[in-house]
Amino acid sequence: MDRKYQAVAEKIKKLVMDSDYRLGGKIPSIRDLALTYGVSITTITAALRLLESQGIIEARDRVGYFASSRVLGAVDRSREHEPVPTNLADNTFIRDLATLNQNHAVPLGSAIPANEYLPNRQIQKSLLRAARRTSETLSYWFPGTPAYLSAIARRMSNIGVNSRGSDIIATNGAQEAVMIALAALTNKGDTVAIASPSYPGILHALQILDLQVVEIPCFPHGPISLDTLEFATRNFEIKALCVSANCSNPTGYSLSDEDKQSLINICKKSDVAIIEDDVYGDIFHGKARPTPLKALDTDGNVIYCSSFSKTISPGLRAGWIHPGRYYQSIANQKYFFNLACPAITQIAVADFLDCGTYDLHLRKMRKVYQRNVNMLRNLVLRHFPEGTHCTVPDGGYVFWVTLPFAVDMEKIYEEALRHRIYFAPGSMFSVSKSAGRCLRVSGSNPVSTKVKDSIKYLADRIEESFHARSHDCQAH
Amino acid sequence: MDRKYQAVAEKIKKLVMDSDYRLGGKIPSIRDLALTYGVSITTITAALRLLESQGIIEARDRVGYFASSRVLGAVDRSREHEPVPTNLADNTFIRDLATLNQNHAVPLGSAIPANEYLPNRQIQKSLLRAARRTSETLSYWFPGTPAYLSAIARRMSNIGVNSRGSDIIATNGAQEAVMIALAALTNKGDTVAIASPSYPGILHALQILDLQVVEIPCFPHGPISLDTLEFATRNFEIKALCVSANCSNPTGYSLSDEDKQSLINICKKSDVAIIEDDVYGDIFHGKARPTPLKALDTDGNVIYCSSFSKTISPGLRAGWIHPGRYYQSIANQKYFFNLACPAITQIAVADFLDCGTYDLHLRKMRKVYQRNVNMLRNLVLRHFPEGTHCTVPDGGYVFWVTLPFAVDMEKIYEEALRHRIYFAPGSMFSVSKSAGRCLRVSGSNPVSTKVKDSIKYLADRIEESFHARSHDCQAH
Repeated sequence: MDRKYQAVAEKIKKLVMDSDYRLGGKIPSIRDLALTYGVSITTITAALRLLESQGIIEARDRVGYFASSRVLGAVDRSREHEPVPTNLADNTFIRDLATLNQNHAVPLGSAIPANEYLPNRQIQKSLLRAARRTSETLSYWFPGTPAYLSAIARRMSNIGVNSRGSDIIATNGAQEAVMIALAALTNKGDTVAIASPSYPGILHALQILDLQVVEIPCFPHGPISLDTLEFATRNFEIKALCVSANCSNPTGYSLSDEDKQSLINICKKSDVAIIEDDVYGDIFHGKARPTPLKALDTDGNVIYCSSFSKTISPGLRAGWIHPGRYYQSIANQKYFFNLACPAITQIAVADFLDCGTYDLHLRKMRKVYQRNVNMLRNLVLRHFPEGTHCTVPDGGYVFWVTLPFAVDMEKIYEEALRHRIYFAPGSMFSVSKSAGRCLRVSGSNPVSTKVKDSIKYLADRIEESFHARSHDCQAH
Repeated sequence: MDRKYQAVAEKIKKLVMDSDYRLGGKIPSIRDLALTYGVSITTITAALRLLESQGIIEARDRVGYFASSRVLGAVDRSREHEPVPTNLADNTFIRDLATLNQNHAVPLGSAIPANEYLPNRQIQKSLLRAARRTSETLSYWFPGTPAYLSAIARRMSNIGVNSRGSDIIATNGAQEAVMIALAALTNKGDTVAIASPSYPGILHALQILDLQVVEIPCFPHGPISLDTLEFATRNFEIKALCVSANCSNPTGYSLSDEDKQSLINICKKSDVAIIEDDVYGDIFHGKARPTPLKALDTDGNVIYCSSFSKTISPGLRAGWIHPGRYYQSIANQKYFFNLACPAITQIAVADFLDCGTYDLHLRKMRKVYQRNVNMLRNLVLRHFPEGTHCTVPDGGYVFWVTLPFAVDMEKIYEEALRHRIYFAPGSMFSVSKSAGRCLRVSGSNPVSTKVKDSIKYLADRIEESFHARSHDCQAH
């Protein structure tokens, strides 16, 4: 038995060190571990004692085993996780996302706000008013309609970025903003740093621009690890960093203002441009609007991208970019790509913002989304396997779930879709293998009975997949 | 004198052979040639007689000298004009175009239809109806709203391209359509063939995608020379051809159906994808809607791009693409670039098309634009230097003007802009030097007294520049 328990201990050590257990969270129960590795309860118990003696895990009375505080503290300095530039292979989940609006699936993974959460009546009024202004709606407006650019500049000023309309360019959503920023800053084959996990649209943008990616993990807690970022900027020639410093998708984490300043300094030192995606910044769960990186930026190196797709309406495609010192090249990209954005949506959004009900709407939505996230987190922690880890978002409506074990996530994804349940598997958010054990859950829709049932459904599929794998292990 | 008249004859020969004189049009008068080359009337007369004896030019009674029919016939087989792949340098006119809508210049060069030529009242009604459908306007619709895709498919079927809504993807104007097609088909450094002169947006797209361009000239009469196209496809690895087969911008020329079929065959033989831009196809001046290439395409190799920016409104940004067999990769490009187009504009355009007034509007506009073009052509031929050549458009509202001599077009352009007159200098439409002697004139706005005066103003500046150059030549 000597060899066996040591070998199992090695496996459990790897599980703890390579995973989000390092963020905390109970590791699987003795019984589950025994099933997984196809060994006896006695062997597992011996293995856990060995790991405890090595300081890898620690027992907590009547609860179970956790990664030790030594391991937690060592995470960022661990060289096991040094990032390397990677080419982006084809992502098999792209099609499902693209055709999502044609399905009537339970939108557990969708980051699109439910229509009932949008300011329907007010925006209809603004659209009607805009529709009457034909002399404006029928014309080209590059870089945007004056009223829209000016309304955006006022909002930017309110969140600490003193701006004028002439600093802003209207875009079709934040995705186009990020895309034209990347296109302006990079050439084919260049390397761009992103957080891991990251919003899938960033991976798509890098993929079609033929760029290399360096993924910077987001542990211990935050949208991005600053130690690893610094390591990466020193070791690779990185053209730009794409990051959401506030309520980032999919973790929901924000950086502290101090960390934001450090991030800016790290990038400045290595001449890395920062592309900030702040689409969730307005839906913070705390007391105050978190500061955008752009507000701490003194030399125009932060390119701020945002939209109203999460707060007013995705269908208006009302986004914008504040390109800082990259204004000219980014303006050219926008103009050459599709000349200008439609006028009526800009006029309507400016009208809506001028009505002054946006902040009231935001206050309401923050509470709703926070409540949804709490409910869903509790459901996941209750039904998913022991040792499942959920992030605690600082804002937005999505959170990131890490399972204690690898499962066949693609199979579960396909099966769930056939049952009209849509969730977002981890491989959409990162090229790193460890994301295969993760998923994003979204509270962008009401937590209906259907949604609750689908969490249980997923929990069952995960349990099944996990036992099927354990069985396979035993059989071999 | 012997040597002198022979040397001058060589210069005049070069002028005729290297220029649009080969398309016909009177060459400059004896007096003007004498001024240009700083020689006597006698020398010019001797030079012209020599060229006449060589069959380069021919005299027409009481009118003057023209390129001989032999030269006209020889144009396409001339190997002097073999195209070569070129990298696109920065185009200095980009900014002026981009900021055009902020000027209040006489829009002699603008290809944007005047607001008064748009179906203002009807589109306002459609926008108002669309604005009331909040449950649709606030949502994402990829690849487009069902009603829009289906309305486009019906129109495509009407012009000979049997289509279903599922063949179509909504885009922000035709520029985005061309751009995503190019992005899907090419990699950095690849070579793309375009007509010369071409719509500037194509040059911009190639520039930001870092592509090489092969320019295919448009003489003798048509949007593109098929002989040169065939030569280019045989000699270079060309990934795609961007072409407007109907009422092409800036020449206004269309290919015959026979030539369209030849073009398709040439491209098929060398596996060159065809990106067809048909934005002016609906504004033909003849009796019947000219056939799009796509209608003659039997194997899905033609990617059809168009929009309503020339006919309904530029500000709606309502375009589309029928990607044929490239559907999947082009759909991914669109989705990754900016997810979807706004819903309200699509809903409004579908509503407008369903009202059935679009064709009535088109019939009216075709007459208006044809009348404007005729008036402007007559004004240019009357006021511009002798030997100026204007294309005779088959449709649209722009035509292409070639001066008999080189002038400092950039200086004239800047001077005119200071006088609030905007015209489109030839260098916007081509990287070839000969375009420097050309300009595009547009009848997209009413031919007001201001417009008429600005033609005279330009004629005067051109005359001045021409004499200044002649003077410089004499001085040296």
